Amino acid sequence: MNLLKLAASIPSLDAKAVQKAQERQAQLTKPAGSLGRLEEITVQVAGITGKAVPSLGKKRVILCAGDHGVAAEGVSAFPSAVTPMMVLNFLKGGAAINALARQAGAEVQVVDVGVAADLPGSKNLFSAKIARGTRNFKVEPAMSGAEFQKAVELGFQLAQQAKKDKVVWVVLGEMGIGNTTSAAALMAALLPCAVEDVTGFGTGIDRTQWANKCRVIQEALQRHKLKPESPLEALRKVGGLEIATLAGVVLGCAKNRIPVVVDGFITSSAFLAAYRLNPKVKDFAFFSHRSEEPGHTKFYEMLGVQPLLEMKMRLGEGTGGALALNILEAAVRAHAEMATFESAKVPTKIEKKPKGSKTSVTS
Amino acid sequence: MNLLKLAASIPSLDAKAVQKAQERQAQLTKPAGSLGRLEEITVQVAGITGKAVPSLGKKRVILCAGDHGVAAEGVSAFPSAVTPMMVLNFLKGGAAINALARQAGAEVQVVDVGVAADLPGSKNLFSAKIARGTRNFKVEPAMSGAEFQKAVELGFQLAQQAKKDKVVWVVLGEMGIGNTTSAAALMAALLPCAVEDVTGFGTGIDRTQWANKCRVIQEALQRHKLKPESPLEALRKVGGLEIATLAGVVLGCAKNRIPVVVDGFITSSAFLAAYRLNPKVKDFAFFSHRSEEPGHTKFYEMLGVQPLLEMKMRLGEGTGGALALNILEAAVRAHAEMATFESAKVPTKIEKKPKGSKTSVTS
Repeated sequence: MNLLKLAASIPSLDAKAVQKAQERQAQLTKPAGSLGRLEEITVQVAGITGKAVPSLGKKRVILCAGDHGVAAEGVSAFPSAVTPMMVLNFLKGGAAINALARQAGAEVQVVDVGVAADLPGSKNLFSAKIARGTRNFKVEPAMSGAEFQKAVELGFQLAQQAKKDKVVWVVLGEMGIGNTTSAAALMAALLPCAVEDVTGFGTGIDRTQWANKCRVIQEALQRHKLKPESPLEALRKVGGLEIATLAGVVLGCAKNRIPVVVDGFITSSAFLAAYRLNPKVKDFAFFSHRSEEPGHTKFYEMLGVQPLLEMKMRLGEGTGGALALNILEAAVRAHAEMATFESAKVPTKIEKKPKGSKTSVTS
Repeated sequence: MNLLKLAASIPSLDAKAVQKAQERQAQLTKPAGSLGRLEEITVQVAGITGKAVPSLGKKRVILCAGDHGVAAEGVSAFPSAVTPMMVLNFLKGGAAINALARQAGAEVQVVDVGVAADLPGSKNLFSAKIARGTRNFKVEPAMSGAEFQKAVELGFQLAQQAKKDKVVWVVLGEMGIGNTTSAAALMAALLPCAVEDVTGFGTGIDRTQWANKCRVIQEALQRHKLKPESPLEALRKVGGLEIATLAGVVLGCAKNRIPVVVDGFITSSAFLAAYRLNPKVKDFAFFSHRSEEPGHTKFYEMLGVQPLLEMKMRLGEGTGGALALNILEAAVRAHAEMATFESAKVPTKIEKKPKGSKTSVTS
């Protein structure tokens, strides 16, 4: 699969569906524009799906897990052993993403792209391990060309599968100790911006560890000489297996006209790589929340986006995406299920009545 | 019922349940604090309900409808005839609040407190009409003392009923052409602040109508001589029947330890009256969204609150409250359903391992 060709083949929004959705919004029993961002969401979903009245349906969190060689540099508060244990937690339904996905009525597809441990077989686990973690990008490229290609193609296949399964919303999720370091390196290279502006405290490192994390990223950027014009190069050299897969999911969802919900800092770095290949992916994406990771605000500034939620979250897994899914689906539901002024016989204009006249209505 | 005594009897949060909820949050499988505002929500709900792990359960939008004598002054873009027609729309399930309540899994209790029209009997309608709308508060008090007392007591009874029905979340909703004028008058009197700062464009009036709306409110404030220290007086003289009832719902929910979700500008004016009686009601309330009505921001500034959502909505009915309910319930669900580090056997600290050792995990 030629990734540049794939990226170039992203369609445009369906202008006719957009217009029809706008017309319907104007007829629903509410003052014009009074549902604010819910109206904008609906109109965008109409443009994505090509349906003036988009359907409610299956929702899926695609949660990709992978380990990071750079974790050996002491950039995370947690050991890499947490990655497989959290994957088991996902499979048993005990993690935050499981609870929040249940709340949103979404299924969680757990994908092992690159966990550095043997995982037990489970009907809930999509096993697609490409490598036992990435290489330490401080000293060498995170992935080989073949590994990288496989990871992005896997993401595209996951999106194709979602289409086949009649999934109407895809949420991006991730797990991988060390992956805020990878995401920060990608943000610094592709926004582009200063390392210090996109490097945060991840799962809870201290000031000294933060300075070390910045140094590690800085050295990697110098070694690999990355440029915003070469997003695939950056994604391969300092990205993660799960991040490369998620970039493939973004491209695949756009190609298949499935609305895709971007979660926090990590999934945003995957989105950014896809966006640098073709900015049209933005039309197919919804941005769920502003993470506490400082680099997330830099990302939104560049993109000119106001995320849906500001909940001071910094957990990843797709948790912000699952939370925002409730809002996104609510928008589509209101659009689909509300009565029109005509069907509900609600007057739309001031009509003068004789003073003191009594009104009587029947159903 | 002595309303001042009722207001004085609001309990405090349960400090023990708050502490236990905080302890549980620290044990859940996530970096400490990483669920941000979701954690704060849960801890507050624990304090309200007295349960360290609050239950999921029945959710109810209490949607009170009433007409406003002041609508005769041309303060609204829609005629009063819209109030009963929208009530019929609620009963048939075709309004925005119906769709959004379905999304949140909440029931909608439609209460006729003061609609100025005869409504058909319906099993979905709680008929408690106190008057056919309020009087025009530009020239006389909106309610008599007896009407006002009845309205607040009705709200208290609705909260008692919710308790009896094992409702775990109450959302405040309203409908009443002219009620942004009433709410703006209450805000100006009780925040207090300048009329122009809390008067907005409601359902869509123009600049000239807005100037007239400000004048009407200004005249009413001069006539009735309202003060923040006398919230009941203000609520009776420039409030609405539905607003007085909602103030009673706020007091009743606090008294019965039920978390109450405040919606937009109108329900916030009802909350404000209750808050001026006893600021402790704030502990029992959640603030769902920032309405496009400019006065809503003044209200939040006074209260020192950051609402959960900013969706540029200005519809009322409880729509913002129903939308936020998804987030509020998600917080409680994550708290109740997540595994702990101990139960999931997830390591919490960096443990040094010999370099290159392979990890293997079993479920």
